[in-house]
Amino acid sequence: MPWFLPSRRPSPDAPRVLVLGAGFGGLNAVLGLRRADVRITVVDRRNHHVFQPLLYQVATAALDPSDIAYPIRAIFMRQRNVERVLLAEATAIDLAARRIQLDDGVLEYEYLVLATGATHSYFGRDEWARHAPGLKTVEDALDVRRRVLLAYERAERWPEDRDALLCFVVIGAGPTGVELAGALVELAVHTLARDFDHIDPRQARVILLEGAPRVLPVYPEDLSAAAQRQLESLGVEVRTNAVVTAVDEDGITLKSGERIAARTVLWAAGVTASPLAKALGTPLDRAGRVKVEQDLSISGHREAFVVGDLAAIASQGRVVPGVAPAAIQGGRHAARCILADLAQRPREPFRYVDKGSLATIGRARAVADFGPRLRFGGFAAWFAWMAIHVLFLVGFRNRLFVVLSWAWSYITFRRGARLITGRASATRR
Amino acid sequence: MPWFLPSRRPSPDAPRVLVLGAGFGGLNAVLGLRRADVRITVVDRRNHHVFQPLLYQVATAALDPSDIAYPIRAIFMRQRNVERVLLAEATAIDLAARRIQLDDGVLEYEYLVLATGATHSYFGRDEWARHAPGLKTVEDALDVRRRVLLAYERAERWPEDRDALLCFVVIGAGPTGVELAGALVELAVHTLARDFDHIDPRQARVILLEGAPRVLPVYPEDLSAAAQRQLESLGVEVRTNAVVTAVDEDGITLKSGERIAARTVLWAAGVTASPLAKALGTPLDRAGRVKVEQDLSISGHREAFVVGDLAAIASQGRVVPGVAPAAIQGGRHAARCILADLAQRPREPFRYVDKGSLATIGRARAVADFGPRLRFGGFAAWFAWMAIHVLFLVGFRNRLFVVLSWAWSYITFRRGARLITGRASATRR
Repeated sequence: MPWFLPSRRPSPDAPRVLVLGAGFGGLNAVLGLRRADVRITVVDRRNHHVFQPLLYQVATAALDPSDIAYPIRAIFMRQRNVERVLLAEATAIDLAARRIQLDDGVLEYEYLVLATGATHSYFGRDEWARHAPGLKTVEDALDVRRRVLLAYERAERWPEDRDALLCFVVIGAGPTGVELAGALVELAVHTLARDFDHIDPRQARVILLEGAPRVLPVYPEDLSAAAQRQLESLGVEVRTNAVVTAVDEDGITLKSGERIAARTVLWAAGVTASPLAKALGTPLDRAGRVKVEQDLSISGHREAFVVGDLAAIASQGRVVPGVAPAAIQGGRHAARCILADLAQRPREPFRYVDKGSLATIGRARAVADFGPRLRFGGFAAWFAWMAIHVLFLVGFRNRLFVVLSWAWSYITFRRGARLITGRASATRR
Repeated sequence: MPWFLPSRRPSPDAPRVLVLGAGFGGLNAVLGLRRADVRITVVDRRNHHVFQPLLYQVATAALDPSDIAYPIRAIFMRQRNVERVLLAEATAIDLAARRIQLDDGVLEYEYLVLATGATHSYFGRDEWARHAPGLKTVEDALDVRRRVLLAYERAERWPEDRDALLCFVVIGAGPTGVELAGALVELAVHTLARDFDHIDPRQARVILLEGAPRVLPVYPEDLSAAAQRQLESLGVEVRTNAVVTAVDEDGITLKSGERIAARTVLWAAGVTASPLAKALGTPLDRAGRVKVEQDLSISGHREAFVVGDLAAIASQGRVVPGVAPAAIQGGRHAARCILADLAQRPREPFRYVDKGSLATIGRARAVADFGPRLRFGGFAAWFAWMAIHVLFLVGFRNRLFVVLSWAWSYITFRRGARLITGRASATRR
């Protein structure tokens, strides 16, 4: 937390607040409680908070993992009512006993904030995961980076496989899919263009598949159209109404029967709530999310909140989407409810404020939607996108380095993080 | 290569030069041939050149991998006589037929530069490798970073195991061991000190073991003494004449019978030449290095050079050490020999010029040895160390970002790359 915000040292018998998951939801619940007389424990499977909206930049070699990830301990170092930060995994939740089972140990609580988020959903076809990785963690992003860069290396060595190797398919044209497709074209056209001797990376095809009739289906229609125009002017092949029925190591098959030979397939199509939701024994929605009350608590358990991608809730008649601003607002709301309880005030219902949507489509291209009177595309949207993302990045060092990396890439067309790590040797398969 | 250096487009029947390995030796052989009428192929198992002297900074979370690694293709992008850069592994060398077998394919050459370097040597105890990783690749450094950061996370969760978890043993007090030990203390004392609630990272012990009677055994004695003083003032426990006889997951045993319980053991003790040397069928020295002629060529094969850590050669009666400057000079020498052949001039023998030694021992501490009249320690040596390392880093972006990262760490005592990736969950073992 920023050094200038005051925080409070709790009394020894203050209620214990357990926050599971330090994504946008959990992080903001903890920050929202910084002046409360509570004793907070934060549990996460990772030692770092990840700025997920920029994972695609790591996957396309523009940023380093540590540019967009920050140690959870360091975030809460100065917040005095955070008593413990644990790197651990929760395996079971006993709502009645107010107890969490960890992989090794037990934690008790008076208040619980569940914010374990979502994971990829392959719509029941989990065997696709091997061939079409998604983008949720730093490891995912490094895996995608390795696959993409290795595809070019392999094409250089085995020109007879070139067509399938230089065909990149992105499944799902939500914001992540759109941004990823745009970044893949730029990587090929600007960064790698002159690196190879036997292939021309500019011949790479990037195909963006969307099952719905338009890209960015949750955005207003005119923005979808603008996004598609910008994608196509960049060189992305956009296919809407394209439903994938098979994914294997050689490519994908569409419902129409059409086969696309592509050695690199990336998944941006669906998410499902973290499996912890099932362990609660409370009603879930179709995507596996926990149905919560208007104050974000679990029915019959006023002390247990669910925020972010894990929660299924409607606000003013509309389903709250699984985006970062909703998780941030949910985390803050849970904190406000706990503060209200402590002050013996009534809780307010959660109201989601849609602050608008932004998606970037490559170098100086983007679309922005801040309500009906403020929709725009092109450079202004891109600049807004950049400013907002940098502002939300945790930690001054990260902001500084991200801005410098972007400035560098913008001036030189280079990308600094073009490393293949992990299983690095370029076998043909 | 720098954009301002001229390079030459080769004639179609120019001799083919095959460079195996793009470390300091291979890189400088290629750069030394930039104006030669030759057709160069570079083969490496990785897609990046690594600045190995700074790997310990990645291992201790001060730098990102991409700060010290640079794509090989990008280095040679503008050198017109580099015809191919291949991400591939050589499996056999047929010196008589002038042919290299790759994992998938064959390459022929008129000139060969072998620069595949060295790997860790556990003196025949390869089972130690699991418990005591070394530092040769980016993956090694990320593995060490993960182990070190996880040790603190585990100590926070299981205080009863604290002593063994917060004991870090570094085996071998050459430059890498000394730098690593110093950086481990600084990580504990400056960076992590306030991050934990149940442990005090400043209680971590860092033990540096050296089998010889003094640290930095190849340096002059007064510098060894200065280095040891600086290490001890920083808080490192230095033990000389300490020979390790066993390494397992709980710690190490010394020849004296003494047992040190330590969950994190790091290896900086010995290297052996890359296994490719054995495949040559030519005489090797005790460390597995190829004995070469005075011009660095293999006996009976004037067209095949061995440079860097893979070569065993004496210059002016002294064995040339396995350090970066020797590899750089060796690579340049091989290039000069090829240029001499092309111009039908006689080859010169290789002369190693010892430009001095530097080792850093943490924040503003170092020792420098630029000959008997120029030996110094402390801040001046540290500043010299920093300037020289930054100057040798490949690529302007890398230099800029390394300087910024260092400035940042120096001002704030923070380290930006404190991420645990890979197998991230903190099980007790």
